[in-house]
Amino acid sequence: MKENQYDNPLFFEKYAQMERSKKGLQGAGEWHALQKMLPDFHGKTVLDLGCGYGWHCKYAADNGAAAVIGADISQKMLDTAQQKNAAPSVRYVCAAMEDLTFAENQFDIVLSSLAFHYVRDYEPLIKQIATWIKPGGSFIFSVEHPVFTSYGSQDWYYDESGKILHFPVDHYYEEGKRTAVFLGEPVTKYHRTLTTYVGALLQNGFTITQLIEPQPPLCMMDLPGMKDEMRRPMMLLIGAIKL
Amino acid sequence: MKENQYDNPLFFEKYAQMERSKKGLQGAGEWHALQKMLPDFHGKTVLDLGCGYGWHCKYAADNGAAAVIGADISQKMLDTAQQKNAAPSVRYVCAAMEDLTFAENQFDIVLSSLAFHYVRDYEPLIKQIATWIKPGGSFIFSVEHPVFTSYGSQDWYYDESGKILHFPVDHYYEEGKRTAVFLGEPVTKYHRTLTTYVGALLQNGFTITQLIEPQPPLCMMDLPGMKDEMRRPMMLLIGAIKL
Repeated sequence: MKENQYDNPLFFEKYAQMERSKKGLQGAGEWHALQKMLPDFHGKTVLDLGCGYGWHCKYAADNGAAAVIGADISQKMLDTAQQKNAAPSVRYVCAAMEDLTFAENQFDIVLSSLAFHYVRDYEPLIKQIATWIKPGGSFIFSVEHPVFTSYGSQDWYYDESGKILHFPVDHYYEEGKRTAVFLGEPVTKYHRTLTTYVGALLQNGFTITQLIEPQPPLCMMDLPGMKDEMRRPMMLLIGAIKL
Repeated sequence: MKENQYDNPLFFEKYAQMERSKKGLQGAGEWHALQKMLPDFHGKTVLDLGCGYGWHCKYAADNGAAAVIGADISQKMLDTAQQKNAAPSVRYVCAAMEDLTFAENQFDIVLSSLAFHYVRDYEPLIKQIATWIKPGGSFIFSVEHPVFTSYGSQDWYYDESGKILHFPVDHYYEEGKRTAVFLGEPVTKYHRTLTTYVGALLQNGFTITQLIEPQPPLCMMDLPGMKDEMRRPMMLLIGAIKL
């Protein structure tokens, strides 16, 4: 059974209070970096895996995409996507991304934002995606950084007075399930190494075009906790082209 | 002034006692992974940056390389290389790698093992290397992993009883000088992010073919401390082709 905390009403409500939920792309600390990695959407067919509120689907549509499919496991997220980010060229589909089936070469562009760390079996998924993307097509995704996922708690290590000492790394090569508390709820995520994230792409006919660990933008540095984001990488952004 | 601890007699003597110094490639925990990344050396021109004792130069020569240049900043290391790893096709050169000059397209293969983290200016060096390698040529190198270099001390975080708790990460986005104690001596190393390591390659006409965080081989797991090497990545191995 694939976990779906986003359909948990309490979790869903808390998620709605995050900057990225209220403000969309402009509220997401990594958007300034991700936006630069995106290809020209004009006339393109686009798939967004784990689309959530649909911000990236709407962005693709607004930038000329011919047809966009946004897929998410959570119907509640898709209901919000339909309210906030509907567009004639965008279709939202409720499904776990591992269960999706598409035709070979169906898409010019596949996107995924902060969703693959919820997926247990990454390599079969990448193999599937590689068949869905046309030769020359783009694959751009973000995940939580292996540094951020390895220990498990996704929290800093503090001294007795509650001051941050550093960020802990452990069990790095033990890939698999971690339970972190996110928005006050236990959430299952999957840690995998950088070797695995990159290797599956190289082994499935992708060439890496960009690999970015985004830093918070200067304009967000005054938000609570944001300066600490300079102390360890939280996200990994990868851009690739299907050969 | 580029630091050269390897010409410090005390440091040099301690280095000589390491497994990798006594046993060569078979004593290096990452060799089993690095070896698989190496291209066919037959008839090739090879450059090894920071060659140390010259194990990789000798390996290239033994595997058919036509001409190998091993460069190192330490004359003492090169004296040992000449004793242990001389070969008719290998020439050892004493120079800091940042000061080397070669002709455009001079090499088929450029190697570097655990040396770039001693170099302050990585990006200009990669730019130079990109001109030295022929189109279609290979560039394979290992460095200390950004997880290992970010905090600075390169040591575990322990509890009061001396038990390892985890490995600390901090100051990740502050690239630059770190002073670690290695073999009992203070050594200057340079931390840089994964973004920087990979980005300089992509920006200088390389395509990434392999990115590996090597785990210790099973046959070394019983050596003191080796099981802890599964808890955090210490090295990053990158293979690239010049386009």
